[in-house]
Amino acid sequence: MPGKIKAAKRPASSKVSGERGCPRLRIGLRDGLILGPGKVELLEAIEQEGSISGAARSMGMSYRRAWLLVDALNRMFDKPAVLTSPGGLRGGGAEITDLGKDVAAAYRRIEDRTLVAIREELGPLSKDIDLK
Amino acid sequence: MPGKIKAAKRPASSKVSGERGCPRLRIGLRDGLILGPGKVELLEAIEQEGSISGAARSMGMSYRRAWLLVDALNRMFDKPAVLTSPGGLRGGGAEITDLGKDVAAAYRRIEDRTLVAIREELGPLSKDIDLK
Repeated sequence: MPGKIKAAKRPASSKVSGERGCPRLRIGLRDGLILGPGKVELLEAIEQEGSISGAARSMGMSYRRAWLLVDALNRMFDKPAVLTSPGGLRGGGAEITDLGKDVAAAYRRIEDRTLVAIREELGPLSKDIDLK
Repeated sequence: MPGKIKAAKRPASSKVSGERGCPRLRIGLRDGLILGPGKVELLEAIEQEGSISGAARSMGMSYRRAWLLVDALNRMFDKPAVLTSPGGLRGGGAEITDLGKDVAAAYRRIEDRTLVAIREELGPLSKDIDLK
């Protein structure tokens, strides 16, 4: 969809944020579900914040949007990536499963390997891989 | 932009079209310009068709859109990626430069290396990397 190419905005928490030639990587999984930087960033934020609402807040995302992304993440693999606990006084909590942690870590390794490939393959052709 | 994650549509000519876990890769170059699959596919189509209009037609894209993408491509690097020749009886022609060929080939190599990384890193976690 060439007409829909747009400037790639990197999540603040991206491990390659600010790196030259930062890749934006979307990986097609079952049922057309896509594993991309937003879902991975959300997994990392849930691990850090301990709740979907806290993660959404930290990402400046609506709770509804975060919930929908978690729902998609939990349909992507054979087991859930995020587990939630019911409300209670402190409100409901959420944690990512070992699978969720493995998926996020695998995505970041793929991202890092892609960045190496970009530098090696494209670096010789461009002194201007963008820092932004 | 997690909310804007959408199913990645692969260009028909993508070398990894139909591959499991097909990546969609956008690479930030100078001035926020992005090298993505659409521009690379257009470079390949121009090489094949010998004109921007023919390339646009083969991609089901408007001439205007193709022209704008070529303009962006030619501002991405120190030298142009596409050269055009004025009208004449057969209409204007276009060809990609050696730099354009190198850029397209480098992008495809990056894509292939990313696909290997996806299979190695994510494959063990998912039997359901999508074929679509």
